[in-house]
Amino acid sequence: MDIRPDSVMSLSEPPCLRVAPDVKLGKNVRLIGFANLYGCEIGDDVKIGTFVEIQKGVKIGNRCKISSHTFICEGVTLEDEVFVGHNVTFINDRYPHATANGKLQTEADWPCIPTLVKRGASIGSGAVLLCGITVGENAIIGAGSVATRDVPPDTIVAGNPARVVKSITPKS
Amino acid sequence: MDIRPDSVMSLSEPPCLRVAPDVKLGKNVRLIGFANLYGCEIGDDVKIGTFVEIQKGVKIGNRCKISSHTFICEGVTLEDEVFVGHNVTFINDRYPHATANGKLQTEADWPCIPTLVKRGASIGSGAVLLCGITVGENAIIGAGSVATRDVPPDTIVAGNPARVVKSITPKS
Amino acid sequence: MDIRPDSVMSLSEPPCLRVAPDVKLGKNVRLIGFANLYGCEIGDDVKIGTFVEIQKGVKIGNRCKISSHTFICEGVTLEDEVFVGHNVTFINDRYPHATANGKLQTEADWPCIPTLVKRGASIGSGAVLLCGITVGENAIIGAGSVATRDVPPDTIVAGNPARVVKSITPKS
Repeated sequence: MDIRPDSVMSLSEPPCLRVAPDVKLGKNVRLIGFANLYGCEIGDDVKIGTFVEIQKGVKIGNRCKISSHTFICEGVTLEDEVFVGHNVTFINDRYPHATANGKLQTEADWPCIPTLVKRGASIGSGAVLLCGITVGENAIIGAGSVATRDVPPDTIVAGNPARVVKSITPKS
Repeated sequence: MDIRPDSVMSLSEPPCLRVAPDVKLGKNVRLIGFANLYGCEIGDDVKIGTFVEIQKGVKIGNRCKISSHTFICEGVTLEDEVFVGHNVTFINDRYPHATANGKLQTEADWPCIPTLVKRGASIGSGAVLLCGITVGENAIIGAGSVATRDVPPDTIVAGNPARVVKSITPKS
Repeated sequence: MDIRPDSVMSLSEPPCLRVAPDVKLGKNVRLIGFANLYGCEIGDDVKIGTFVEIQKGVKIGNRCKISSHTFICEGVTLEDEVFVGHNVTFINDRYPHATANGKLQTEADWPCIPTLVKRGASIGSGAVLLCGITVGENAIIGAGSVATRDVPPDTIVAGNPARVVKSITPKS
């Protein structure tokens, strides 16, 4: 469709949110629109951007920010005060395949490998996190990085694969 | 909008699917929501995640999984049993430009360069595939990789640019 | 939901567009669907793909193409005839955090660092652009690259971090 200044749609458009009845939402959770949430648990004072999917089994702490275009899969736990940038991808399957024994895979066909992001950490936009890793407290994963192993607390990692590029003075 | 536990929207929300009438869907195609498909041909028993766009001319075989946030452009062919992770980006234009001779480009202004992903291959989440390449049977492109050339069958490639890091024993 | 060939939805589905009343749209702006725009200024003859978010304060010139799955944040200016590929991520915050002094951050808590993309430049799909940089006229950022510094005009940069790989003969 072509849109002209005189026919701009307003935000009275439906927010286009898909939040399954089994989602546990804390207080003051802010959702913008175009989100798909099911089976997850979200803490208090969490902001969730557009085009975000959060799968079942995910636990998100209090005062987290989940930015637009981000995918959080089953197996991921975010502690309190975690920042997740735009277009971040979590993973829970080391060797993904479409099929097992010639049939479309079901959940029974692969082990869901967990990822833990600890309090106060920040995941830069466009980052990809392989599964089975822990991101330490207050660590920062640089934008566009691919984190393939544990990220020590109070460090900045960057690159593909991500390596420590700097230490951060821990907050007192 | 702010959403509280007592006002959770249910999945009775419209699925927000845009599937053009010219899309050819096989049997048991599963679409979740927030997808934009036009002019493409999808095989049987294919699962397509949220926030996926599949353009005209794309052919997807049987028993494929297309994960959320993925973009499949014109020129791409996926054979049977291909896994495409989350947030995967295909490309069909080597030197993209907004305009040609001062006017917004149309399709006539660039050659669409094809990409072929062969049977049983898996594309890891967050991967980017440059155009004009073939991904061999059962190959795996590691998460977050940028594939710039052909991927040999039965290998794992990773990195930016992606290089072979491992061979896979072919399935008997 | 499962969709069968005999129950395909048509494009009479709502376009699912969220365009805030404060968006300034030029002439012949084309929006497809699933977009979230607010507080931005878009020039004439601009095409904007699906799953795109454009934040307040963004200025986009004439005859630009913004491809699907792309995020353009506050602080970004695109001059005329800029191509932005699919799944491109801009950034405006060097050290993002979820909270400040134990409360969810608000805009007052970080400086918005600008990014300028000059006339005729092309940003490849899957690229991430760190903030505070200028992309020169007619430059190309390769697909999947992470641009961490200024991109000289009439060059192609690629990789993570992106480096100059080629010069382009300026258009006469």
